[in-house]
Amino acid sequence: MPLPRIPSIRVLQNPREMALGLIHQVNATTGRACPCHGGARHDHHHHSVTGGASRPKFASTINTSTDYAFEMAASSIRYGEGVTQEVGMDCANLHAKRVLVVTDPKIAKLSPLKRVLDSLKTSGVSHDVFDQVRVEPTDSSFAKAIAFAKNYKPDVIVAVGGGSTMDTAKAANLYSTYLEADFLDFVNPPIGKGLPVDRPLKPLIAIPTTAGTGSETTGTTIFDYEALGVKTGIAHRNLRPMLGIVDPLNTQSMPPQVRAASGLDVLCHALESYTAIPYNQRSPRPDNPLNRPAYQGANPISDIWSLKALGMVIQALPRSVKNPDDYQAQADMLLASTYAGIGFGNAGVHLCHGMSYPISGLVKNYHHPGYPTDHSIVPHGVSVAMTSPAVFKFTGAACPERHLEAAKLFVGADVSNARLEDAGTILSEKLREFLYKLDQLPNGLTGMGFQSSDIAKLVEGTLPQQRVLKLAPAGAGQQENLTKLFESSMSLF
Amino acid sequence: MPLPRIPSIRVLQNPREMALGLIHQVNATTGRACPCHGGARHDHHHHSVTGGASRPKFASTINTSTDYAFEMAASSIRYGEGVTQEVGMDCANLHAKRVLVVTDPKIAKLSPLKRVLDSLKTSGVSHDVFDQVRVEPTDSSFAKAIAFAKNYKPDVIVAVGGGSTMDTAKAANLYSTYLEADFLDFVNPPIGKGLPVDRPLKPLIAIPTTAGTGSETTGTTIFDYEALGVKTGIAHRNLRPMLGIVDPLNTQSMPPQVRAASGLDVLCHALESYTAIPYNQRSPRPDNPLNRPAYQGANPISDIWSLKALGMVIQALPRSVKNPDDYQAQADMLLASTYAGIGFGNAGVHLCHGMSYPISGLVKNYHHPGYPTDHSIVPHGVSVAMTSPAVFKFTGAACPERHLEAAKLFVGADVSNARLEDAGTILSEKLREFLYKLDQLPNGLTGMGFQSSDIAKLVEGTLPQQRVLKLAPAGAGQQENLTKLFESSMSLF
Repeated sequence: MPLPRIPSIRVLQNPREMALGLIHQVNATTGRACPCHGGARHDHHHHSVTGGASRPKFASTINTSTDYAFEMAASSIRYGEGVTQEVGMDCANLHAKRVLVVTDPKIAKLSPLKRVLDSLKTSGVSHDVFDQVRVEPTDSSFAKAIAFAKNYKPDVIVAVGGGSTMDTAKAANLYSTYLEADFLDFVNPPIGKGLPVDRPLKPLIAIPTTAGTGSETTGTTIFDYEALGVKTGIAHRNLRPMLGIVDPLNTQSMPPQVRAASGLDVLCHALESYTAIPYNQRSPRPDNPLNRPAYQGANPISDIWSLKALGMVIQALPRSVKNPDDYQAQADMLLASTYAGIGFGNAGVHLCHGMSYPISGLVKNYHHPGYPTDHSIVPHGVSVAMTSPAVFKFTGAACPERHLEAAKLFVGADVSNARLEDAGTILSEKLREFLYKLDQLPNGLTGMGFQSSDIAKLVEGTLPQQRVLKLAPAGAGQQENLTKLFESSMSLF
Repeated sequence: MPLPRIPSIRVLQNPREMALGLIHQVNATTGRACPCHGGARHDHHHHSVTGGASRPKFASTINTSTDYAFEMAASSIRYGEGVTQEVGMDCANLHAKRVLVVTDPKIAKLSPLKRVLDSLKTSGVSHDVFDQVRVEPTDSSFAKAIAFAKNYKPDVIVAVGGGSTMDTAKAANLYSTYLEADFLDFVNPPIGKGLPVDRPLKPLIAIPTTAGTGSETTGTTIFDYEALGVKTGIAHRNLRPMLGIVDPLNTQSMPPQVRAASGLDVLCHALESYTAIPYNQRSPRPDNPLNRPAYQGANPISDIWSLKALGMVIQALPRSVKNPDDYQAQADMLLASTYAGIGFGNAGVHLCHGMSYPISGLVKNYHHPGYPTDHSIVPHGVSVAMTSPAVFKFTGAACPERHLEAAKLFVGADVSNARLEDAGTILSEKLREFLYKLDQLPNGLTGMGFQSSDIAKLVEGTLPQQRVLKLAPAGAGQQENLTKLFESSMSLF
């Protein structure tokens, strides 16, 4: 059992002091240095390649209030250029009689949907199309898809689109299975009841057309709950698609700004899941495996996916944004988004995502280049990445080795002589440099029209995101700390 | 699309000549050096982090006779010390009325089974136990389990044991679902028909008690087909368990020799899957995704698992064998066996496994230390590892970067100045040193009582293993090459 990373009784106030205190404390406990770094801690990421000494006998150190296990669940993934053509055979193999295809009005006119419909026709599979997905869906846009599904009674659902489409298809699948359920039954607490998904759903095949959300692998669906004006979601591993069909041909039509924004979401999925609290620091320990959340904290399996995705994003995103003919970079970004999806889908995200929701919701007069101009819009990946330099500078003290491990993947980084107490700053600076060179973000919150006087509202909008805030280092989600993080994000460069 | 790694028209005869020819040929095609090595090739493992230049537009270079896609499917994995206690709740969550517990006579008396039965009782789940699994199962030992399952009519199956038990449970699940099927319908060609598994099977929960097979994550089951006296199996991703419960408490009872032998199986799973031909060099391209084999060749996802597992085995296996109190090493080996299972389960194994079957089958008077003495026995992992130094020396020419990448993970390896043409030799030597220090193998085939005059029969017994031989570099499975590999394995140290 890895040693505690963050004593839960401590409140983060001064990250550097905290780091030093932690090092002292862990050294005192273990009496030995971490063999992989100049530093001092036996970190959770060493689970799989521990140094030398053996540890106490099994189970003797278990804290029964925190979890002691993790579960990795991922959709099957089929990857290949042109592999969308197989979806009709997949439906036929499932003996599908009524396939519901879910998409948005824009994709409805593009080649990815055409490929899917052609394939269904070739295989002689009956189907109908719901093409009214709302980008950034709401409970009422979900309701339309749910009503359509309840009426059509599909035996297989195929989602073709970005995260909004895949998330809408998940909701349609869930509520057309639990016919009697109230919508809030499955919605995350405190807004809903957060009931587990304990019945078999219909097979869902998810075909992403953006390289961002990784929703094809996860059991998460996100929407705006209109009554309260907040983002929330439904999350259970049994909500995940049966199969993700990951076909680089389907992401070719993305404009560069959409590539950038969705790619920044992947970057933050990878970084946040890798730096989330470890699964065995999360509480409460579930009384039934069905209640173990998908956002369970970092674990040895999610770590593999998150780090791999991070390395790929750092290499491929700049090329994919700057060179529309770099098909290999586009393909790598698509695969990275799937990898990061498996990572955060089994670990969770934390501060960047939690803080992004009020940023998107409260923006007043900002039009991101390359996006529709009829209403204010901050693309999800942009609102997420906006706070990342501040966030990782702050979280560095909680797990400095992980921050250095992540920093190492950035081009030109050399952390061989870095001090643990500088880990957050080092990662933050590499990240800021990466974002600056990518040149796709406004210069901080002021660049989107926010003022200092808006910070209180941004904090207020973040506080309800407990599902993700609880995966941040202890105390990070407190009002005072969130205020500082927003303040530091007013200007980036 | 990665470049061809091995021209399929060539026959491997002199690996060094072949490597040089290949380098020349690929250089001529790409006109640029591989950015990650001093070498020259744009290897398949760069798929995910390509160097700089863009490549030809999508799909223009696809060879329609080979596959163009890969599919990653893995069981859900739940890991934790003591997590076996949750299996009763899992069955209750599945609304199970009749749970069939499958185990072998030895485990039937040990704590892992007790934990499972206690948990089922606590959750009030009705169950029955089949404890007649044969270690190294046969079609007739499978038949007993199948008959038991047909009679008991379970709605959930729980396997508690090593690979033999999990494989037997898979067979019982399959044939108690396809009640009318002939046993050979699903068995791998050329012995059986190799039909795909196209119906939903009962949920199977696999609980490994050894750190070796990784069978808890795969859709493969292996047995001796008595009529022909050969090892064969059934392999389809839909045969895989729903959930693997990976609990280090369950592997505590293994004696050191069993730890060693099963750990060597993990080592070869990792090395063989990482050096298998790439998925897009495998033919034929399937006409239906249902016919895409689980053993599909190396791919960007299997690579992640295989390399990660390899690194863990190299670190943890010696400790786990030599220090019975090193619980962290034991836990790491268990996790590594699961990781390697996901890797080879989605890529395949090749020569070491193909050649191991006649070694185990033809051995006459060999009693491996720590194993039963009433009959000759070569533990599977021992027969697999026996040929590994010869095999990887030979396969080095086909994908030298991968051999160097693997060699780098061994303790004290420095391949920074290595020449590509030495890659096979370098990996082979690191491996031989590792095996020598582990001190758990007889000194080659002669150490097991084989003589030069037995080689023809060993080759003859290998040739039918086409399912795995086809994943070895082109020509490697030919009689002449297999003869050389067995000759080189007569003495190891």
